[in-house]
Amino acid sequence: MQIAIVLFDGFTALDAVGPFQALSPLPGAETVFVAEQAGPVGDDTGSLTLVARKSFAEVTRPDILVVPGGPDVPVHDEALLDWLRTVDAATTWTTSVCTGSLLLAAAGLLKGREATSHWLALDAIREYGVTPTGQRVVFDGKYVTGAGVSAGIDMGLTLAGKIAGDEHAQGVQLMIEYDPQPPYDAGSPAKAPSVLVEKFRAEVPASS
Amino acid sequence: MQIAIVLFDGFTALDAVGPFQALSPLPGAETVFVAEQAGPVGDDTGSLTLVARKSFAEVTRPDILVVPGGPDVPVHDEALLDWLRTVDAATTWTTSVCTGSLLLAAAGLLKGREATSHWLALDAIREYGVTPTGQRVVFDGKYVTGAGVSAGIDMGLTLAGKIAGDEHAQGVQLMIEYDPQPPYDAGSPAKAPSVLVEKFRAEVPASS
Repeated sequence: MQIAIVLFDGFTALDAVGPFQALSPLPGAETVFVAEQAGPVGDDTGSLTLVARKSFAEVTRPDILVVPGGPDVPVHDEALLDWLRTVDAATTWTTSVCTGSLLLAAAGLLKGREATSHWLALDAIREYGVTPTGQRVVFDGKYVTGAGVSAGIDMGLTLAGKIAGDEHAQGVQLMIEYDPQPPYDAGSPAKAPSVLVEKFRAEVPASS
Repeated sequence: MQIAIVLFDGFTALDAVGPFQALSPLPGAETVFVAEQAGPVGDDTGSLTLVARKSFAEVTRPDILVVPGGPDVPVHDEALLDWLRTVDAATTWTTSVCTGSLLLAAAGLLKGREATSHWLALDAIREYGVTPTGQRVVFDGKYVTGAGVSAGIDMGLTLAGKIAGDEHAQGVQLMIEYDPQPPYDAGSPAKAPSVLVEKFRAEVPASS
């Protein structure tokens, strides 16, 4: 079983590393970070660099595809969109975290489906013919989308349970000690102080 | 303000990336990944490579030090322990995630203090004269330790709030949409099925 996590300039690190940590212990799984060209790929902060071990040309039939997001995902990158369409044709599961769902949508893979995204991108994904839901993890057929950034951990554990059973996924949760205790209850627009929600909404271009 | 996240062969990726995502938005912060030598550093799975942009020699006075853990942290790596001691002398905050606290302890920095670690390493840290607590995030003076792997997100957000205020940290939480909804309630040994807890305990060498 091959898990391919795709990287592109400006990805958000936790979008990729959350599901990586949850999915890579799957029995018999080989995880590969892949980008158009193999080599270092920088994140959205400019401080973190992950290495893509393989190029698009070298990864053609992953069983599980994971697409992270970022604040400005390359929805017009035809090489990336072509590769997503090509490998999706044979995946067992095609997944995304955060605005990674905008890339799947831009590739035409989510048309007519339910999906989620970062809370600031739920309007944008609707423009691709996708019905956004308010859930943190959305399954629609083989397409599994997670909400913003940290939701990739929940998405990965949920998918790990579907694939390898509850006990496997609970073991992963225990080993990553995922017993979350956030110091605030501000992790969604419904719960955060409205002044913050409005501030971030004002910073997002209407067309993004 | 410089945040230094130290890397070594076999680190656990989410240990480093969780606090990175929570702390790097601090106002005026520059985050640097550092290792004994600059260059690629492989994680504990062998599948993920992060790049250390700077060497120990180039990072001598970080304000915040973050030490990730891993399943087999190099507690006898004198170059690493020396660097931890050197930079700790001038940090404002010295932090760890998971078994990163074993490295701080091995460097002699936690002696007589309260700290935490991965749940499987709480006995091991006691051998360094440290008092382990059952909390997910432990503050003792400027030393801040988080429990296993995913606890680095809680540690990072808690510290971000102490440094830059609740509203800043709540904004970070909202942007990483950290509204955790794990599919199971198995994230600590007190909650997970006992068969899993016993299985993992049996796999840990008594001396680790």
